[in-house]
Amino acid sequence: MRDEVLERAAKEEMQVHTDLALEARESCGEGEEGIPGVNIRESVHGDLGVKVTWVEVLDEQGERALGKPCGSYITLEAERMAVHDESCHREISEALAGYIRRLLRGVGNPRSVLVVGLGNQEVTSDSLGPQVLANLRITRHLETGRAEDRTEAGKGKEAEAMGKEETAGRGDAGRFSVSGIVPGVMAQTGMETAEIIRGIVAETKPGALLVVDALAARSVSRLGTTIQLSNTGIRPGSGVGNHRHSLTRESLGIPVVAVGVPTVVAAAAIVYDTVDALAELLEAAGAGNAAEAVDGMTLPERYQMVRELIEPRLGPMYVTPGNIDERVKLLGGIISEGINQVFS
Amino acid sequence: MRDEVLERAAKEEMQVHTDLALEARESCGEGEEGIPGVNIRESVHGDLGVKVTWVEVLDEQGERALGKPCGSYITLEAERMAVHDESCHREISEALAGYIRRLLRGVGNPRSVLVVGLGNQEVTSDSLGPQVLANLRITRHLETGRAEDRTEAGKGKEAEAMGKEETAGRGDAGRFSVSGIVPGVMAQTGMETAEIIRGIVAETKPGALLVVDALAARSVSRLGTTIQLSNTGIRPGSGVGNHRHSLTRESLGIPVVAVGVPTVVAAAAIVYDTVDALAELLEAAGAGNAAEAVDGMTLPERYQMVRELIEPRLGPMYVTPGNIDERVKLLGGIISEGINQVFS
Amino acid sequence: MRDEVLERAAKEEMQVHTDLALEARESCGEGEEGIPGVNIRESVHGDLGVKVTWVEVLDEQGERALGKPCGSYITLEAERMAVHDESCHREISEALAGYIRRLLRGVGNPRSVLVVGLGNQEVTSDSLGPQVLANLRITRHLETGRAEDRTEAGKGKEAEAMGKEETAGRGDAGRFSVSGIVPGVMAQTGMETAEIIRGIVAETKPGALLVVDALAARSVSRLGTTIQLSNTGIRPGSGVGNHRHSLTRESLGIPVVAVGVPTVVAAAAIVYDTVDALAELLEAAGAGNAAEAVDGMTLPERYQMVRELIEPRLGPMYVTPGNIDERVKLLGGIISEGINQVFS
Amino acid sequence: MRDEVLERAAKEEMQVHTDLALEARESCGEGEEGIPGVNIRESVHGDLGVKVTWVEVLDEQGERALGKPCGSYITLEAERMAVHDESCHREISEALAGYIRRLLRGVGNPRSVLVVGLGNQEVTSDSLGPQVLANLRITRHLETGRAEDRTEAGKGKEAEAMGKEETAGRGDAGRFSVSGIVPGVMAQTGMETAEIIRGIVAETKPGALLVVDALAARSVSRLGTTIQLSNTGIRPGSGVGNHRHSLTRESLGIPVVAVGVPTVVAAAAIVYDTVDALAELLEAAGAGNAAEAVDGMTLPERYQMVRELIEPRLGPMYVTPGNIDERVKLLGGIISEGINQVFS
Repeated sequence: MRDEVLERAAKEEMQVHTDLALEARESCGEGEEGIPGVNIRESVHGDLGVKVTWVEVLDEQGERALGKPCGSYITLEAERMAVHDESCHREISEALAGYIRRLLRGVGNPRSVLVVGLGNQEVTSDSLGPQVLANLRITRHLETGRAEDRTEAGKGKEAEAMGKEETAGRGDAGRFSVSGIVPGVMAQTGMETAEIIRGIVAETKPGALLVVDALAARSVSRLGTTIQLSNTGIRPGSGVGNHRHSLTRESLGIPVVAVGVPTVVAAAAIVYDTVDALAELLEAAGAGNAAEAVDGMTLPERYQMVRELIEPRLGPMYVTPGNIDERVKLLGGIISEGINQVFS
Repeated sequence: MRDEVLERAAKEEMQVHTDLALEARESCGEGEEGIPGVNIRESVHGDLGVKVTWVEVLDEQGERALGKPCGSYITLEAERMAVHDESCHREISEALAGYIRRLLRGVGNPRSVLVVGLGNQEVTSDSLGPQVLANLRITRHLETGRAEDRTEAGKGKEAEAMGKEETAGRGDAGRFSVSGIVPGVMAQTGMETAEIIRGIVAETKPGALLVVDALAARSVSRLGTTIQLSNTGIRPGSGVGNHRHSLTRESLGIPVVAVGVPTVVAAAAIVYDTVDALAELLEAAGAGNAAEAVDGMTLPERYQMVRELIEPRLGPMYVTPGNIDERVKLLGGIISEGINQVFS
Repeated sequence: MRDEVLERAAKEEMQVHTDLALEARESCGEGEEGIPGVNIRESVHGDLGVKVTWVEVLDEQGERALGKPCGSYITLEAERMAVHDESCHREISEALAGYIRRLLRGVGNPRSVLVVGLGNQEVTSDSLGPQVLANLRITRHLETGRAEDRTEAGKGKEAEAMGKEETAGRGDAGRFSVSGIVPGVMAQTGMETAEIIRGIVAETKPGALLVVDALAARSVSRLGTTIQLSNTGIRPGSGVGNHRHSLTRESLGIPVVAVGVPTVVAAAAIVYDTVDALAELLEAAGAGNAAEAVDGMTLPERYQMVRELIEPRLGPMYVTPGNIDERVKLLGGIISEGINQVFS
Repeated sequence: MRDEVLERAAKEEMQVHTDLALEARESCGEGEEGIPGVNIRESVHGDLGVKVTWVEVLDEQGERALGKPCGSYITLEAERMAVHDESCHREISEALAGYIRRLLRGVGNPRSVLVVGLGNQEVTSDSLGPQVLANLRITRHLETGRAEDRTEAGKGKEAEAMGKEETAGRGDAGRFSVSGIVPGVMAQTGMETAEIIRGIVAETKPGALLVVDALAARSVSRLGTTIQLSNTGIRPGSGVGNHRHSLTRESLGIPVVAVGVPTVVAAAAIVYDTVDALAELLEAAGAGNAAEAVDGMTLPERYQMVRELIEPRLGPMYVTPGNIDERVKLLGGIISEGINQVFS
């Protein structure tokens, strides 16, 4: 299934796909007056120098420029995410909690949230979502009076009761209701993740979805050192796994906040980087001119040919660091801690 | 949560709960002409002497007598389930496949099935369902033409298309559509299993549910040596875990076939067995009479007192064999193999 | 294999085995002047009221009375170990770290320690050791200069170099070398745990062994609420699993500190408790006298008969709480945190 | 740790490391009369067309040419290894069993074998060894008379007794003694795998070591479709993980048979392939000549520069297919089945 991410990427004018708005921005040739339709702010958070980039896609022009739907994308970057350092991780968890709160406030401050751990727990680089879910404090079933009410309620009554509860919940100062699910991937379930989540949302009526997923980046230096938050939901072709159907406010009827960490790079990215570096070097040396007339093919055409030669067998291949288990474990800890802070 | 199973059991006129219709029958004082409203057939299957008991609860009288809802309960018993013996396991898988097919034929021979692996994969004795799901051949997403159709379809169109597919599926000779889910337990999700399944069923519209679960037995000798099939669904208070809401045809709108293996006995059962054995011994010795007048308490009252003394702290306690991991692994293999045969 | 623990227990004058010195003390009929050869101190630690019991077996007389070898047994008890409560757990981790340090000082304050996670990670109640190991900070391979030295060294040279290192390590203020192993159980390896550990100790020459194991208690109320430390090593028949060979200073040549948590009770214990409660009740009512003359059997003989009747099929059975996964996870976190503090 | 594999590879005259003798042969420029010091036979096995290549490194000349130590390397290749196909997998298991038997006969037909599952079970692509071990039939502890003898024996006696057993074992027609260990990786244990195995071998005295490991290949097309057997042991820098110390007959005193499956390719390999393809294309177009004089750098120097530019940050990076979990599960099943056949 992952093939599609890259197949799709290959068609996007020969650009390798990235789930990070940050990287989409880097590759879109920003002019002096910035990118039209995109607002960007950068800041540094805390003593450790966590770099925070806030990318706001404002309109269709911005969407086209970045290839990302309208909304907010917040990226936290810190090299020390990838190493054991408790005080650093605590600081990042707190920053993360702050930004999740902010995004939730922007969508009406829902008091009941369904947290979805996307991905395949059998594949280390895709197991971030399931790992975060394993350490969440789930509270929906602990709400006072809930269990009894519902045991007695028939199906119709219950749905009604739950509707009320949710409203009541919003008024109930500070008390959150957190539920969670690890839906698995399509090879395990035979179902689209979107089908599963849509069904559960319809039945349990949470106020918002908080989705945790492993992402694909463009640059290996970002693997395990970056967290991206967004309020735009999950769309087909994003994530390490593949989601052909959307998890968005449009498809689910409730707001969706996503938290992701890049854990893989499409193997094709390395082909591109290599061809680009070589092209640059040859052009600098004047080889470009010399080659142009030869054999009926321009240099850019040759580069393209190499890409097409090597890429196909790399289609379903991913690049990931050897210690991906440690990185996912560390980042999973940071994120579950951050989410627990938001809802405690 | 598991407490409730046993709390409930304690109230059931001091009988320890069992999920096995076979054991319910044993404890209900069968007369010479059998149990009214209950039909029982016994047979021996294959060279290995798998004992098959078919308990048919016919009406309300039968329901009251057995404490089990109307329907069929098929039990396969063989000591060799619990030891490594490939040819034996193959034979049991085949027998199991045959009985699953028979129960499915009885509910209209559905061609699309959602298999649900109930239980907690973090608790060995409760991990049968998740283990079976890990070895199933999931095929729903492989159906020809499915992926493309649905990628293009909007949400409304898709629901319509799926309705058609399902109908079409039934006509399509021999091709099954198998989907699967491991919903987790309420402490992990904050949701009733029934809520999750109801939502997924409403969204994906399978023709039937096949539920796999670990069960609670009354006798330790049945742990890991018995498989029970039924067509009555899962009801509150059954299973190793606790299901306050039902997974039944009434609650879901589709037939439910259940496959279960007893992996635990409520610890209270041992108190009962011990008291009963002692009472029998004392009565045989005439001590019963002597005691009756003393201290204003009859012997039965004293027995009851001991039960009430010891049972409470055993409420949430389970008895399970030391090698439960091997037994669950073996039985999980037998069951997944059997289910794969049915749908291949 | 676990059968043996209980078979053995059954022969011990019909007493159910416990790994806790605390419980051995309770069942040995302590007189007013205490138990000869045994020194006992009790105290309460910290704000949370962690109950600390220090049992010192001083000589052979004490060994016979308690059925435990000479040495120190420290037990920490707190109900709140079994529930989510971070500040409580931090306090217990700190107390634990303090007592581990004390026991290590008593055996020469070794600077290099091999931590052994005993048990079967496939069985939730036996997975404490492996879970603790998964969260330890392992440092032996990080020592400066170590890697290079050893890559060049031949086998003989290396052994020599390591001997030196160990000595050097002791002088190196505060720097610990921590290695760790999860040896698995005999059904998985075909080897005694003691064989595996003896081999690794001979090859890597740690200064001490720190063994983490799940234990069998006598009372269900202690499951997941008690931590026992000792400096006497692990002996045949102790632990949830079975260890026919010892892990002791005598067998390994290095001191052994053990940390354990009771996670199971032998199912036979419930038979005993029930018979005892009933016997007490009947005797109080005068039924004892009445029964004595009847049928050529005294009441104690009858009780014994019931035990012998019910116990055999319970031999390999264990009692464990339904939420054993949560308890083991919480206790595993407390213990790994405590050990990490000792060696940081 | 994995960095070293690739660092080392980078120094090997800019060749990317492969664990497969088959690939080493491909890259060493075989002449018409073959490679001196290397014997190669190819055949096709069974109905499915499993391609079998037998590479025999005969002497030092062969070692230099291939970069692999003297000994036999048998490679089984079949595309269908990577897909669900039971009859195909059975055929490969049988072929594998035959070749393992042949290699064991070549080293004296040992009757007691320690199977070692190398790798990190937390990293999917490195978990082949642990997965195979989880499905092996372990028998060493089941040998008649063994348990009792050894419980009584002191350490010295036992070692002696075991020496005898081993000899006896060889005479005992057809009965094998299989033990197994998953030693973990250095980041988990702080110890070299070689230290752990050396200690266990010294203590338990198996007749041979059978090592299962995930390998690094040069070509992505071989991932999960190739099994390599060898009788030369495991050497530093091989495997997916890193083994700085050897597991060989020289270091352990017993013969070592290795079974491996390539699951990753070093990310640097893609840089090389891309540069090579581009170089070839440019040279064909005559661009090579044009460029030679320019800027004081020849084209080969420029290629080298690009490699050096891009490679460093790829050092610790691996390429692996998206469905690596399924491939490792399938191959693990084939291999454990094959080994079980050998020793049953």
